[in-house]
Amino acid sequence: MVKRTSLENADCPVARSLDAIGDWWSLMIIRDAFLGMRRFGEFQKSLGLAKNILTTRLRTLVGCGILELVPASDGSAYREYALTQKGRDLFPILVALRQWGETYAFAPGEVPNFLVDRKSGQPVQKLEVRATSGRRLNSFDTEVRPRQ
Amino acid sequence: MVKRTSLENADCPVARSLDAIGDWWSLMIIRDAFLGMRRFGEFQKSLGLAKNILTTRLRTLVGCGILELVPASDGSAYREYALTQKGRDLFPILVALRQWGETYAFAPGEVPNFLVDRKSGQPVQKLEVRATSGRRLNSFDTEVRPRQ
Repeated sequence: MVKRTSLENADCPVARSLDAIGDWWSLMIIRDAFLGMRRFGEFQKSLGLAKNILTTRLRTLVGCGILELVPASDGSAYREYALTQKGRDLFPILVALRQWGETYAFAPGEVPNFLVDRKSGQPVQKLEVRATSGRRLNSFDTEVRPRQ
Repeated sequence: MVKRTSLENADCPVARSLDAIGDWWSLMIIRDAFLGMRRFGEFQKSLGLAKNILTTRLRTLVGCGILELVPASDGSAYREYALTQKGRDLFPILVALRQWGETYAFAPGEVPNFLVDRKSGQPVQKLEVRATSGRRLNSFDTEVRPRQ
């Protein structure tokens, strides 16, 4: 991946997030981890990815603390990849990506699956950006301001 | 970018979103467009990116309907890049990336800038995944279910 050069961007929280997770495969691995996958072979089967590429991506995700290696849940000698709290906190990013895809990447009525609340079985609410007062905000209602 | 091969993934809304925007530079261009940049030279200066790479990314973003070419706002002969509605609807993704970066990619107290509500000057609320009832949901509270 070509790297940014501008110093200005190094100070941007969006840029720093993308440094950690901003490539297609890393995000697909994270998605699969949220779906419950934990083993190298599971990720490989799901993503159809060459072993060396998957190895590199997993190592990077462990290195930046998004995944951690843990003993296998079945007591075998294998080790598994589990999301850390830092990784679990990526959940709103995945939900936002999913919801945009539902709207724009499928024909109406063709979305094949939904993220639902287990308890009610109903799809989760659409993510909305809100002010502290609860008012809905679109991008025109907001701006980036330097720390005082 | 290496492409996925699994058919299963082609049906995933997350994967389809990432097909459109899932590389570092595309998301940085979209970020800059949200910050108000519209001209080739502005993106280039901000991102420190080779002209040919920027040209390719902009063409892709126009091709998938996230940006559109419009007459220059100052009446000159230039054309500018503007976010379409499809592009503006990426806002929650950018906000989610920013908020995760604020938490995990800076030392406490070192976040250099904030996304604020223009009206109140207060930072926007943290994005939260919620059930239709309004209950907060984490990833364990949810699952992906096929369309009935």
